Amino acid sequence: MEVVLAKNYGFCFGVKRAIKIAEEHKNANTLGPLIHNSKEIERLKQDYNVGVIEDVQSVKKDQPVIIRTHGIQKHKMTFLKESKANVIDATCPFVTKPQQIVEEMSKKGYDIVIFGDKEHPEVKGVKSYSVSDPIVVLNVEELKTHHLKDKIALVSQTTRKVDNFLSIATYLITHFSEVRVFNTICNATFENQDAARNLSKEVDSMIVVGGKNSSNTRQLLKICLDNCENSHLVEDVDDLNPSWFVNKKKCGITAGASTPDWIIQRIVEKISEF
Amino acid sequence: MEVVLAKNYGFCFGVKRAIKIAEEHKNANTLGPLIHNSKEIERLKQDYNVGVIEDVQSVKKDQPVIIRTHGIQKHKMTFLKESKANVIDATCPFVTKPQQIVEEMSKKGYDIVIFGDKEHPEVKGVKSYSVSDPIVVLNVEELKTHHLKDKIALVSQTTRKVDNFLSIATYLITHFSEVRVFNTICNATFENQDAARNLSKEVDSMIVVGGKNSSNTRQLLKICLDNCENSHLVEDVDDLNPSWFVNKKKCGITAGASTPDWIIQRIVEKISEF
Repeated sequence: MEVVLAKNYGFCFGVKRAIKIAEEHKNANTLGPLIHNSKEIERLKQDYNVGVIEDVQSVKKDQPVIIRTHGIQKHKMTFLKESKANVIDATCPFVTKPQQIVEEMSKKGYDIVIFGDKEHPEVKGVKSYSVSDPIVVLNVEELKTHHLKDKIALVSQTTRKVDNFLSIATYLITHFSEVRVFNTICNATFENQDAARNLSKEVDSMIVVGGKNSSNTRQLLKICLDNCENSHLVEDVDDLNPSWFVNKKKCGITAGASTPDWIIQRIVEKISEF
Repeated sequence: MEVVLAKNYGFCFGVKRAIKIAEEHKNANTLGPLIHNSKEIERLKQDYNVGVIEDVQSVKKDQPVIIRTHGIQKHKMTFLKESKANVIDATCPFVTKPQQIVEEMSKKGYDIVIFGDKEHPEVKGVKSYSVSDPIVVLNVEELKTHHLKDKIALVSQTTRKVDNFLSIATYLITHFSEVRVFNTICNATFENQDAARNLSKEVDSMIVVGGKNSSNTRQLLKICLDNCENSHLVEDVDDLNPSWFVNKKKCGITAGASTPDWIIQRIVEKISEF
């Protein structure tokens, strides 16, 4: 059985970096789970004694605490530093960037518009860096309900689609005299989707590795099923059904954004045996 | 005969302002013709002795020289000031704005993109205010041929259409991480067109006053003919044909961007007599 990995799959740059940072800081704690994958969280605990704490208040002086890729709100970061905790910042650089932009632009007097979900931790963090009161919207209709000054700075949650970002930029450009557009979208999710789409056209079986409750993994399965009927979602090797590979020659593999490489590797090895 | 003027017609704000400035400076000269209307140029000469000179080299010390709405290139302005000419600046404020933006943004290290016609005097003037070498384009295809840095400031020639401006903004936003979009489009031309469109639906005759060779006047006629078959272009009262108004009750009037009010007034009075 030939097994081919998608050109892009699994962890994005920021998550890979955060896990490496965690591995380099044995006995530290992450503030909230580092990624949405319990097996990876368990592995970090077992192999590196990296645990999870839920709130900044419980952090003690000199205690090492890892900030996850989404970043945290500025006042929480200030609290940690004032508590003299040992802050290990694994905020994704693609998230640090909109935080810095929002801080700088708000200080310069620009009205801040954030395209994103106001309940998402990343957006809460980015928003908190403004010295004024930013507007967080998911579409133009929401934007219309707000009063804005004539100088606006626009950023995006990293995982949003560029088409929707452009709709908001277009509305602002046609209604206000100066709009500073910072394209802070990260294409990792869409690169994984594009790679899965391309690969699923070339194979006779396709395996998507990831959590069954993960929306991004299910989106990958949907894309694969459009091109290859014999596509299946698995969480680990136990979910593999040998009947899927009978009389098949070439199996494609992709993985959700929270799937660690070691699980993917295990799947690749198992399928190669069929 | 009822005569109704379009809600917006004729001179824009900048041209009205420039003519007022010329009238207030008897015996001055304009650098190039103030507007594309020979009758208005003649009137300014006869009533105010305001003439036309063609180049900055012929301007002498203390001689009053009026800068027209399009503005001039920065080095010409510098030359006039160094020659101690009496510079009377009638540059439209909507043109001064992109000049200032281009100067400031280029000094801050932004690559400058100007959406417009590089042969147009306004664009030549705006471009000259950059300390770097701005890119002047009319569409995305032209833009793609240029190499740009990652920080870009975008302005527009005042008379361009917003849809095309947005195409260029969209390309830049999706390809570069920071784009400062300055919407410097002036809606005067489009407001005249919208007003002509609306009025021509309500009348049984429509008169467009303006130069027969003026593209903007002919565009107004085309819009009126779409809604009112009995639409006609006239340069002055002599062109009016009484047969157009037989059994008609309501005549709409609009005028090209270079048509002075006193010609329009003469037309209104004549038609009212029918």
